[in-house]
Amino acid sequence: MGSVETNGSTPRRPSQQRSPYESVQDYLSNINNFKIIESTLREGEQFANAFFDTETKVKIATALSDFGVEYIELTSPVASEQSRIDCETICKLGLKAKILTHVRCNIEDAKAAVATGVDGVDLVIGTSSFLREHSHGKDMAAITKAAIEVINYVKSQGVEVRFSSEDSFRSDLVDLLSLYKAVDSIGVNRVGVADTVGCATPRQVYDLVRTLRGVVNCDIETHFHNDTGCAIANAYAALEAGATHIDTSVLGIGERNGITPLGGLLARMIVSSPDYVRSRYQLTRLKDIENLVAESVEINIPFNNPITGFCAFTHKAGIHAKAILNNPSTYEILKPDDFGLSRYVSFTSRLTGWNAIKSRSEQLGLRMSDEQYKILTAKIKQMADIRPLAIDDTDSIIRAHHLELENGKV
Amino acid sequence: MGSVETNGSTPRRPSQQRSPYESVQDYLSNINNFKIIESTLREGEQFANAFFDTETKVKIATALSDFGVEYIELTSPVASEQSRIDCETICKLGLKAKILTHVRCNIEDAKAAVATGVDGVDLVIGTSSFLREHSHGKDMAAITKAAIEVINYVKSQGVEVRFSSEDSFRSDLVDLLSLYKAVDSIGVNRVGVADTVGCATPRQVYDLVRTLRGVVNCDIETHFHNDTGCAIANAYAALEAGATHIDTSVLGIGERNGITPLGGLLARMIVSSPDYVRSRYQLTRLKDIENLVAESVEINIPFNNPITGFCAFTHKAGIHAKAILNNPSTYEILKPDDFGLSRYVSFTSRLTGWNAIKSRSEQLGLRMSDEQYKILTAKIKQMADIRPLAIDDTDSIIRAHHLELENGKV
Repeated sequence: MGSVETNGSTPRRPSQQRSPYESVQDYLSNINNFKIIESTLREGEQFANAFFDTETKVKIATALSDFGVEYIELTSPVASEQSRIDCETICKLGLKAKILTHVRCNIEDAKAAVATGVDGVDLVIGTSSFLREHSHGKDMAAITKAAIEVINYVKSQGVEVRFSSEDSFRSDLVDLLSLYKAVDSIGVNRVGVADTVGCATPRQVYDLVRTLRGVVNCDIETHFHNDTGCAIANAYAALEAGATHIDTSVLGIGERNGITPLGGLLARMIVSSPDYVRSRYQLTRLKDIENLVAESVEINIPFNNPITGFCAFTHKAGIHAKAILNNPSTYEILKPDDFGLSRYVSFTSRLTGWNAIKSRSEQLGLRMSDEQYKILTAKIKQMADIRPLAIDDTDSIIRAHHLELENGKV
Repeated sequence: MGSVETNGSTPRRPSQQRSPYESVQDYLSNINNFKIIESTLREGEQFANAFFDTETKVKIATALSDFGVEYIELTSPVASEQSRIDCETICKLGLKAKILTHVRCNIEDAKAAVATGVDGVDLVIGTSSFLREHSHGKDMAAITKAAIEVINYVKSQGVEVRFSSEDSFRSDLVDLLSLYKAVDSIGVNRVGVADTVGCATPRQVYDLVRTLRGVVNCDIETHFHNDTGCAIANAYAALEAGATHIDTSVLGIGERNGITPLGGLLARMIVSSPDYVRSRYQLTRLKDIENLVAESVEINIPFNNPITGFCAFTHKAGIHAKAILNNPSTYEILKPDDFGLSRYVSFTSRLTGWNAIKSRSEQLGLRMSDEQYKILTAKIKQMADIRPLAIDDTDSIIRAHHLELENGKV
C-alpha cells in the first residue's frame, strides 16, 4: 500500500489531555501507579510453541529488565532440572527487575523456589469447585492450612511471597475472601486474582477487586487470560478498582491464546497515564522485545497487534487522511513517536481523498491548484477501482498529470 | 508440538452455567438480545491491505449472510464508481441479511446511497472538537440542521436510517445528547456511538451508553476501534448498558489496527449468552469466513486469535493437562465443538505431567502402572529440557519405555 510518511506528532493542548468521560476514576484507582509482573518466561513458556533455551531466557530477561518491568516471573524450578538451573542463572544476572518463580502451594515446591535465589515466590492453588474436584481434590480448610504453612516458610527465608487463587472468577466469593483475609493477616506481600479460563468481564473484575480491596491490606496482583478477548480491558478495570500489579507476557503468549500482552497493556495505559508510562518504561524498545520473543517461539507479530502491528499507524480513508494531515490527534490516540515508530497516510486506494494526494504531490515537489488535485484524485480513484495500486504506480499518475499541466501551460 | 486429541466436550451441569459474578447484569442489558452490523465490506475496506474486487465482495457478503449476521454494511457509493456498482450488485443478491451503506451526512451522499437499493443508510458526522476544527469545520447547530434534513429525506424514501456521531468519546456530552435527542424525535431508526480513535474504556462506554439509553427511544448502535485493545470488552459493556447493535468486521480489519472482531465478539458473547448465540449464528462456519477474508487481504490469522488461533484450545502445563483430561470445563470456558474445532493436550514439553503422558500412552494402546508413567514422564521431561520434542520423538520414548518394561517382565 502506498503511503505518505508524516512527521512525528504535534504537542497536545492541555484541553486535549483528558476525555470528559475519564472522571469515572475514583480514589481506589491505581491507573497512575501500577507495577508489571512480566511472565513471558513462565506463562509464556506454557504457550504451545515455546521452547526457551538458557541463552534465550537470559536475553529475554535482560531485555525486559532494561525495558523497565518491575518483576520477571520464571517457570517453577520443579518443572524440570534445566528449569531449576535457568532460574538460578537468571537470579545471578543482577538485573534491576526483581526475579520471581511461580510454584504450586506446597512446602517442597516452595523450598526448591527459595533455594534458587529468587527475590520472591509466587504461590498458586486452584480454588474453584472445578479445580478442587478435578485437579488437586483439596477442600478450602486444607487449602487455607497449606497456604499459611507455606507462606510462613517463605517469609521466614526473607523472601517476598504472593498467594494466588486460580480460576478466581468461578470460585465461591465467601471462600475466596476468607482465604485472602487469612493470608493477609499473616503478612503475605500480595494476593493474586486469576481469570485462569478467560471468562471474566470488566465489570465483574471491577466488582471483585473492589470488594477485595476492602478486605485485605496487602498488594493485589491480577492475571487475565484472553479467551474472550477482554484481557487488556480486564487489567485496566482491575487497576481502576485498586489492583496494584498486572501480569503480562510479551505478545500475550501463554496457555491457549494467552494473557494480557505487555504492549497492549501499555497502549491502554499510555492513553490514561501518559506521564507515568513514559517515565517508567523504555517504550522505544518494545518492538525489539516483541521481535525477539516472536522469533524465539516462531510466530508472526499479529497484523492487528496494538502499537507494533504493521498498520497500527496507517490511515487510509480520505476523510481520515484529510484530518490526520491537519492534526494527528483527530484520528490517533497513540503517538507513534512515543514508540520510535512512524505514521503513514495511504494514498493509493479508491478510498483516498484529494488532501492525501495533495500531500503526496507536495512531497514529490509537484504543486498544482486544489481543483487540479481533485481532478488528479478522481483519476487515481478510477485506476484504483480496477486493481490495487503500488506507490510507484500512483506516483507515476501524479507525475504524468503534472507534466500534462506543464505542457498545457507551455 | 505434540498433542493428544480428546473428545469434544462434556455437557455443562446447570450449576456451571453461570459464574457467581454474572449478576452484575441489570434490566438494561441486551447481552441476550443484540444484533451484528458486519462492516468487513466498509470498515474492513479501510484496512491498509484491503482491495476487494466485486467477486470477493459477493463471496464475503454471501458468507456473512449465511453465517447469520443481521446487517452487512458497504462502502459509500460516493467513494468510487466501482463502489457504487458493487453496492447495487450486492443489494440485488437477495441475501437474508439487510444491506446498509455508510455515507457522510449530506443530501448528495444520501441520495446516492438510496439509489443503490440498500435497506438502510448509515449516516456519520464528526462531533468532537478535533473533527469539527480539523475535518469538516461545522458547528453543532449546522450539524443538527444537516442531520434532520438528511434523515427526513432518507425516511421519505422508505429506507431505514441510522445517525452516528464520530469520535463520540471526545465529544461534548451535552452537545452529543442534544443531537441524539433531536434526531430521535424525528424518528431515526438508530443512533450510533463510535469510538473512532480507540480511546474508550469499558466503564466510560457503560456510562455514556447508559445515559444515552435514558435519552433516546430508538436503537443504539456502537462501533469500537481497537487501538488500546479494548474493542471486544467495550462492545460487551455497551450491550450491558442497553446498546442494541454492535459493529464488527471479520478478524477486526479496519482503519489502523481495526475494530471489534466478529469472532472475538462471539467468543465473548457465547460465554455470557450461549443459547442466544448458538441459535442465531452458524458458528462452525466462522473459521472458513476468517480464512476467506484473511486470504483476500493477504494476512495470517493471528496466533492468538480468539477461537480460531492455532493454539486457542491447546493445553500444555502438566497441571492444566491433568484437569482438562478429567473435565474440560476446568480450563476451558469455550467449547471447541461449538465451532467445529478440536482440543489438543500437549505432551511433549518439559512442562508436561504424568497425566498427559498416561493419556497419550493409552491412546497408543500401551498400559503401565501409575508409578511407571511417572518414571516415563521424568525421562521425557529430561529429553525435553535439551531440545523441543516432536510427537514422533515422544511416542518413541513411550514405546521404548514400554518395551523395556515388557522385556523386564519376560
